Amino acid sequence: MNRKMVFFLIGRILLLEGCLLLLPLAVSLYYWDGGQLPFLSTAVLCVGLGMLLCKLCRTDDQVIYAKEGFFITALAWLCASALGALPFVISGEIPSFVDAFFETVSGFTTTGASILDDVEAMSRSMLFWRSFTHWIGGMGMLVLMVAVMPNLSGQTIHILRAEMPGPTMGKLSPRLRDTAKILYLLYIAMTALELALLVVGGMPLFDSAIHTFGTAGTGGFGMKTTSLADYTPYQQWVIAVFMMLFGVNFNLYFLLVIRRFRSAFRSEELWTYLVIIFLATALISVNITPQIGNTAEGIRAAYFQVTSISSTTGFSTVNFDEWPAVSRMILVLLMFIGACAGSTAGGLKVSRVVLMFKTIRREIRHLLYPRSVTSVRFEGKPVDNATLISVGTYFSLYIGLFAAFWFIVSFQPGFDGVSNFTAVAACYNNIGPGLNLVGPAASYSGYGPFFKFVLSIAMLFGRLEIYPMLISLSPSTWLRK
Amino acid sequence: MNRKMVFFLIGRILLLEGCLLLLPLAVSLYYWDGGQLPFLSTAVLCVGLGMLLCKLCRTDDQVIYAKEGFFITALAWLCASALGALPFVISGEIPSFVDAFFETVSGFTTTGASILDDVEAMSRSMLFWRSFTHWIGGMGMLVLMVAVMPNLSGQTIHILRAEMPGPTMGKLSPRLRDTAKILYLLYIAMTALELALLVVGGMPLFDSAIHTFGTAGTGGFGMKTTSLADYTPYQQWVIAVFMMLFGVNFNLYFLLVIRRFRSAFRSEELWTYLVIIFLATALISVNITPQIGNTAEGIRAAYFQVTSISSTTGFSTVNFDEWPAVSRMILVLLMFIGACAGSTAGGLKVSRVVLMFKTIRREIRHLLYPRSVTSVRFEGKPVDNATLISVGTYFSLYIGLFAAFWFIVSFQPGFDGVSNFTAVAACYNNIGPGLNLVGPAASYSGYGPFFKFVLSIAMLFGRLEIYPMLISLSPSTWLRK
Repeated sequence: MNRKMVFFLIGRILLLEGCLLLLPLAVSLYYWDGGQLPFLSTAVLCVGLGMLLCKLCRTDDQVIYAKEGFFITALAWLCASALGALPFVISGEIPSFVDAFFETVSGFTTTGASILDDVEAMSRSMLFWRSFTHWIGGMGMLVLMVAVMPNLSGQTIHILRAEMPGPTMGKLSPRLRDTAKILYLLYIAMTALELALLVVGGMPLFDSAIHTFGTAGTGGFGMKTTSLADYTPYQQWVIAVFMMLFGVNFNLYFLLVIRRFRSAFRSEELWTYLVIIFLATALISVNITPQIGNTAEGIRAAYFQVTSISSTTGFSTVNFDEWPAVSRMILVLLMFIGACAGSTAGGLKVSRVVLMFKTIRREIRHLLYPRSVTSVRFEGKPVDNATLISVGTYFSLYIGLFAAFWFIVSFQPGFDGVSNFTAVAACYNNIGPGLNLVGPAASYSGYGPFFKFVLSIAMLFGRLEIYPMLISLSPSTWLRK
Repeated sequence: MNRKMVFFLIGRILLLEGCLLLLPLAVSLYYWDGGQLPFLSTAVLCVGLGMLLCKLCRTDDQVIYAKEGFFITALAWLCASALGALPFVISGEIPSFVDAFFETVSGFTTTGASILDDVEAMSRSMLFWRSFTHWIGGMGMLVLMVAVMPNLSGQTIHILRAEMPGPTMGKLSPRLRDTAKILYLLYIAMTALELALLVVGGMPLFDSAIHTFGTAGTGGFGMKTTSLADYTPYQQWVIAVFMMLFGVNFNLYFLLVIRRFRSAFRSEELWTYLVIIFLATALISVNITPQIGNTAEGIRAAYFQVTSISSTTGFSTVNFDEWPAVSRMILVLLMFIGACAGSTAGGLKVSRVVLMFKTIRREIRHLLYPRSVTSVRFEGKPVDNATLISVGTYFSLYIGLFAAFWFIVSFQPGFDGVSNFTAVAACYNNIGPGLNLVGPAASYSGYGPFFKFVLSIAMLFGRLEIYPMLISLSPSTWLRK
C-alpha cells in the first residue's frame, strides 16, 4: 500500500476541514456566542496537522489503487469526525468526547441522530457547525477535495468510487475533476433555491440555513426539540418537497441542465422512487387522518414523514412514534429501501431494490422454464452477471452487518427490542430517529459510551456503503505489505 | 399446465394420507380415547377423495414440467394439512378449524408452533397424530409417495426438487425412486435408533415415540406444557444429540453406509454446522451458568437449546426467554441460519450462508484487485455464477418475504414488536417457539384467526423454500394456459 500517498491525502482533507471551519467561526464572531475560541483553535489544529502531513508525506509515487481508495475514504471520514468533534468538547457544550464524536459522525454521515436532550440550549455557532457537517457530508468531502484542490493525480477515481453511493458510478464528464465540480455546482444551486424559498416564506435566515443544510445533505439535524412541528405549513411543504428532490440521483439534474429531458424522465429508478413515495403517502394518510382529524393536515404529515424517511433525512413535524402500528411499520420498511443511488441519501437505494426484484423474476422464470434465456434489463440496458452477483452480495453483507450491529447493541441494558432494532436501522441507514426510546421525541443519550461508538461506526458503514470501512478494519489490510 | 396430472398426483397424496391415518387410528383403538371415529372418518374421506381424483384425472399424458412440480408440491401440502386438521375438529379437541389447520401445518412443516395452551389435556391418539405429522413432513410426503407408490413416470424429479430443501439436490442413485427409498430407509433407521435409546433410558414407549417423531422431523411438538424440562439428563442428552444429527445432510449418512467415510467427513457444510453449534454452546454456557448455578446443567441446557434452535426443532428444557439478552440474541441469529441442506431442518441452511460468505470474500478481493479472477469453491468444486446469483436471489427473497410477513403480523393488536418478530422468525424458519408472548412457556393462541392463517402460510413458505408457494400463489400461474 502506498502509505505516503494515503497520509498525504488525509493531510489535504484536514486542510480542507480547517478552511470549512472558518464558516462557523464567522457565525460565532457575528453572534459572539462563545464559539470563537473553539472554532479558531480547531481550525488551526486542522491546518497545522494537515500541512505537517502534506509536508512529511510528499512523494513522487502518486499512484494509488482501489485498496488505497477505500482506505483513504474510511480514514478521512474518521479523522474529519474526530477533529470536527473538538469544538463541541472545547466549548463545553458537549463535554464528553464520545458524545461529541457521535454527534459529528452523525452530522457528516447525514444521519441526524443526536445525543442532545435539549438542542435549544446549544449556541448558534455550534448549531450551525452541526448542520453544516450535513451539507459537507451529503455530497462527500472527498468529492469536494477533488473539486477544489489542484494537483491531484489521475487516480482519484478510486476515491470517488469509494465515497459515492450506489451500485455503479456515473461519470458526468470524461474528467473526474469536472464531474466533481458539476456535482457541487448543482448541489449549491439547489441549496440556494431551497434557502431562498424558505426565507421568502418567512423563516428567519439562520433557521432557513440550518434546515436547508439538513435537507440538502438528507441529514436531519434541526434546532428545536420538536424538529419542524412549529413551522408553517408552507415551510413544511418546501422542506418536504426538497427532501424528496435531494433523494434523486444528481446525474438526472445534470441531464436536465444539458437539456436531455427525455433521458432524465425515462429513469426507471426515478419513477420507482416516486411511486414508492406516492403509495406510502397515500397509505399513511388514510391510516393517520382519523387520529389527526383533518385530511389536509393528515396528507401533509404523511408526505413530510414519508419523504423524510425515504430520503433518510429524519426531520419530523409530528411524533410519528404515536401513529398506528401500520404507519410505523411502513416507515420502518422505507428506512431500508432509502432513496436513489447517486443522491445524498442513505439506505439500500431504490436501484438495488429494483435490481433484486428483477433478478427474482428472472430466477422464477428460469425455475419454471429451465431452458429459457432471459437477461435482466435496467434503465434500458442489459445488466451483466457480475453486477447481479454484486447486488446480491451487497445485500447479504448489508443484512449480515445489520444483524451484527443489532446483536452488539442489544447488550445495552434497559433498552427494549424495538428501540434497539430501530436505533440500529436509523443509524445504519443514516436516518436519525427510530421508535420508542430513540423516537423523534427522544434522543440517543441513554446509550452507554461503548454503544454510542458502535452506532457511530454503523453510521460510517452505512454512509460509505460498507466496503471502505470493512476493508480498512480487516486485519489483512494492515498486515500485508 | 397438465392439470389432469396435477390432480391425479394430489389424489395419490390423499390416498397416502388416508393410509397414514391408520396409525393414529390404531393408537386410539388401543387407548380407546375417543379418537376412533375422527380418525376413521378422516381416513375414509381421504381415501374416497383420493380415489375419486385418481379416477377422474387418469390420463395418458403423464408428462409434467417444473411448473407442475412446484404446483403439485404446494397444493399437496395445503390439501394434506386441511384434511389432516379434521380429526382435531371432529373430536372437538381443537374446535376451531383455523386453529386445527395452524396446528397441522405446524406439524407437517415441522415447525412445532402450537395454539394449545394446555397440551396435556389432549388425548393420546391426537398427541400421536400431531407428532406423527412431524415425522411425515420431515423427509417429505412427496418423497414418501415416490418411494412407496408404483407406476410413477420419470418426471418425478420436478416434484422431489420442489420438496427437498437446499440450494442443490443430491442424487444418491441414478433412479429417483431408489433415492427416495434410500432416504426413507436411513430416516427410519435413525428414528428406530433414537426410539430404542430413549426406551432403554427409561422413557415410557408412548413418550419416546412422541419425542422421537419430534426430533426426527426437527419439529418440536411435545406432550407436556414444560416440553422436555421434566425428563432425565440422559434423555435430554439423547434428544439433543439426535436433534443435531437430524440437522445433517442425509447424503452424508448414505456416504457412511456405503463406506465412503473420507467423502462424508470432508463436507465443508458439516464442519461449519458443527463449529457453529460448538461456538454457540460455549458462549451460551458461559453466559447462563451464573443464572443456573451449576456448570454441568448450564452446558446441558445450552447444548440442548442450541441444537434445538439450530436444527429448527424447538424443544426446550428451560424457559430460555428468561435467559440474559446475549443468549437470547444468539438463539435468534441461529434461527435464521438453520442446519444443513438435505436434512429435515429449516432456516436458510448452512451451505447458503457459507456460499454467501465466500461470495462476499471474492467480491472484496475483486474490489481491491479488479483484474484478479478467482472462483468461489465449495465442497471442493468451483461454483458457477448461476448458482451464486441463485443464492443471492434466494436470500433477497427470503428477507423480503420475512419483512412482508412481519409487516402483516404487526397488525395484530396487543402484541409487542419482539413477539411479532420472533413469531414470524419461528414460523418462517420452522422452529416453533419465539420470545415474549410466543416464548417456550406460551403459545400462539393469542393471535387472531387471520394472523394464524398468515403464520401457517409463512410455515409453508419456509418448509418448501419459498418458490413452490410463490409460484402457486402468483396470478400468472392461474391465468396462463
